Amino acid sequence: MPRTYTAIFEEAVAALQREKRYRVFADIERIADRFPKALWHGPQGPREIVLWCSNDYLGMGCHPASIEAMAATARSLGTGAGGTRNISGTSHPLVLLERELADLHAKEAALVFTSGYISNQSGISTLAKLLPDCLILSDALNHNSMIEGVRQAGREKVIFRHNDVEHLEDLLRAAGTERCKLIVFESLYSMDGDVAPIGRICDLAERYGAMTYIDEVHAVGMYGPRGAGIAERDGEMGRLDVIEGTLGKAFGALGGYIAAAAPIVDAVRSHAPGFIFTTALPPAVAAAATASIRHLKTSSAERQAQQANAARTKAALADAGLPVAPTPTHIVPVIVGDPELCKAASDLLLAEHGIYIQPINYPTVPRGTERLRITPTPFHTDALIADLADALVAVWRKLGLPLREHALAAE
Amino acid sequence: MPRTYTAIFEEAVAALQREKRYRVFADIERIADRFPKALWHGPQGPREIVLWCSNDYLGMGCHPASIEAMAATARSLGTGAGGTRNISGTSHPLVLLERELADLHAKEAALVFTSGYISNQSGISTLAKLLPDCLILSDALNHNSMIEGVRQAGREKVIFRHNDVEHLEDLLRAAGTERCKLIVFESLYSMDGDVAPIGRICDLAERYGAMTYIDEVHAVGMYGPRGAGIAERDGEMGRLDVIEGTLGKAFGALGGYIAAAAPIVDAVRSHAPGFIFTTALPPAVAAAATASIRHLKTSSAERQAQQANAARTKAALADAGLPVAPTPTHIVPVIVGDPELCKAASDLLLAEHGIYIQPINYPTVPRGTERLRITPTPFHTDALIADLADALVAVWRKLGLPLREHALAAE
Repeated sequence: MPRTYTAIFEEAVAALQREKRYRVFADIERIADRFPKALWHGPQGPREIVLWCSNDYLGMGCHPASIEAMAATARSLGTGAGGTRNISGTSHPLVLLERELADLHAKEAALVFTSGYISNQSGISTLAKLLPDCLILSDALNHNSMIEGVRQAGREKVIFRHNDVEHLEDLLRAAGTERCKLIVFESLYSMDGDVAPIGRICDLAERYGAMTYIDEVHAVGMYGPRGAGIAERDGEMGRLDVIEGTLGKAFGALGGYIAAAAPIVDAVRSHAPGFIFTTALPPAVAAAATASIRHLKTSSAERQAQQANAARTKAALADAGLPVAPTPTHIVPVIVGDPELCKAASDLLLAEHGIYIQPINYPTVPRGTERLRITPTPFHTDALIADLADALVAVWRKLGLPLREHALAAE
Repeated sequence: MPRTYTAIFEEAVAALQREKRYRVFADIERIADRFPKALWHGPQGPREIVLWCSNDYLGMGCHPASIEAMAATARSLGTGAGGTRNISGTSHPLVLLERELADLHAKEAALVFTSGYISNQSGISTLAKLLPDCLILSDALNHNSMIEGVRQAGREKVIFRHNDVEHLEDLLRAAGTERCKLIVFESLYSMDGDVAPIGRICDLAERYGAMTYIDEVHAVGMYGPRGAGIAERDGEMGRLDVIEGTLGKAFGALGGYIAAAAPIVDAVRSHAPGFIFTTALPPAVAAAATASIRHLKTSSAERQAQQANAARTKAALADAGLPVAPTPTHIVPVIVGDPELCKAASDLLLAEHGIYIQPINYPTVPRGTERLRITPTPFHTDALIADLADALVAVWRKLGLPLREHALAAE
């Protein structure tokens, strides 16, 4: 291709560099039997570090039951599915996983996609396309995968203010009860760690005759007596029409899914291009996910330890005067408010303290709210939490970032 | 949601059933150490069958090197990536895989996605969005994932007749040399098994100043001295700007990728939502893929055996009077031409002969060209090939499908 094309691509990257939004990925090698320890393959060669930003929230990706399920299934069934779901790719472990997920969410059926991203993108767009003249009502802070699903549906959409049920009601009322309506929202918003008013949204859906689609990717495994999510915890699971979740965070594997009544799942299964025309998840990945789900259905120990460590971490950082944003969940955001300083803080933590916390900058969060997003797991000990607080204070001082006064005085 | 919604979803499925396009997935459990043997979990319980439609074309998903790489990596690094590429999900095995892929295609860089589907969808749309006023020129028979990528780009598109370089030249000439142009095509079209005139398309791209994007998903691992695909075999690899491939077919794992010059890869890495906002491939999947790629870079035995068995299968079926479509590649389509008979043939093969070949109906192929798509591997022995021919003839007779006369007479 002509050199002009190359220049365009180079400039697209240079623009991000000028805006301090250029991302450099850290090359990480987790140490499964010593999680959250990992090797960082940095410029000076491999070095042991502590992960503080994994979405493997409960460490289930390092659980012996998951690991052995993956290894044993790879040995007996091989490493891949070998085809799309229709063309020889529906493996028995994947069938069992879908049964497990339907049971988890107390729905008639479940459907597994290769990622949570594609389950939202393909699931939302397919549902909205099947419903004639469907109006999509979408929370303002929905994840990119949901925004893409809404966009690809090609239907009229309205955005309601984040978690604002009064605004949602205004929009539903304006649409009327006759028109098909799909409300699309998350249970737990992962960057601020806040939670949707699920029951009140379901009230509105019932009042105005709307269908509900909830994304529980940051909540499945983590909340509820069997780990089915915030809706289970709140006793609202049965009122939701479609529950979307991931196998790639608390369940420690890869993939996404929807759980719903059988006609909904069968319609998506039969019409969603992002489901139909793609190679199925490997049986070994499905088996690992099933092992995690089964474990977390009966064990609450991981959830309790994770919540306790999240609370300890929040307290320790707040005591140290660090700007911890208040959240009702397991997410611990520490606000920096500037992309360059956020990146610098992350780099210093890694290089000088062996602590890995990725900077979260625009467009993942709004400009001016750049942050370190910390995710304590059951395996972050009190000693690791104390190390984290000390390291953050040292970095904050080095970068001249503000620490709360009285906390400093109390040191 | 109101009952009216359920009725809509039920009708969407019922319409497919009326058109004989409703898909029922066979529940398959591959037997890794006896590939292509598998257990079919059918209505009468598990039963041993022979797979004849796997896209694990070379059986690499059952190769000890791939399996051991997956099992060992799961044990040492765990079952999942634990985050997006930016948020702790860039595992060392994934970094090594991208290096391996760049080397395979002799490009500066490579980028791995969670599927070939998303690599096309997100890759094509991101490239076309970055190029101002880009005109996309797309082959008429491109895969759904490419069509979705073209659609999501939101750019002007023109479709050139399948593999028709004269038509492509007309369209390029009409667009002029100044305008940004992206030619999107496949090397090997998987349903008919035919091959693109890569060199002539590259000639046109050079003449008219266009960028080229080739999908080699059915060819990587399979063609070329190191298994880099048809473009490698034809000596055209260096002339293509972006080579897209899959880890889920001949490499026996899961995932997709692009390989290209560094500025192209970095631009896609930095701008593609379907890459940025999704959990990375598990390290164990990356390691399995790397093991396969490395093996196939130096071993041509699998490719040769597969080509030999494909030729033997075509000859055996043609000799038996079956309507084998002529193809220059490893795909063996046997045309039925009717969706109901195609499904019936597949069902009979499975139930009465223990042979699994999924029916391929509209919309995967045009109406009237419904077919059984047979994919011989290096592990389909002469005895299995003879069994297949006998079984197909029996099914053809039972269904009253036409067999070629003189072949019947010669029996």
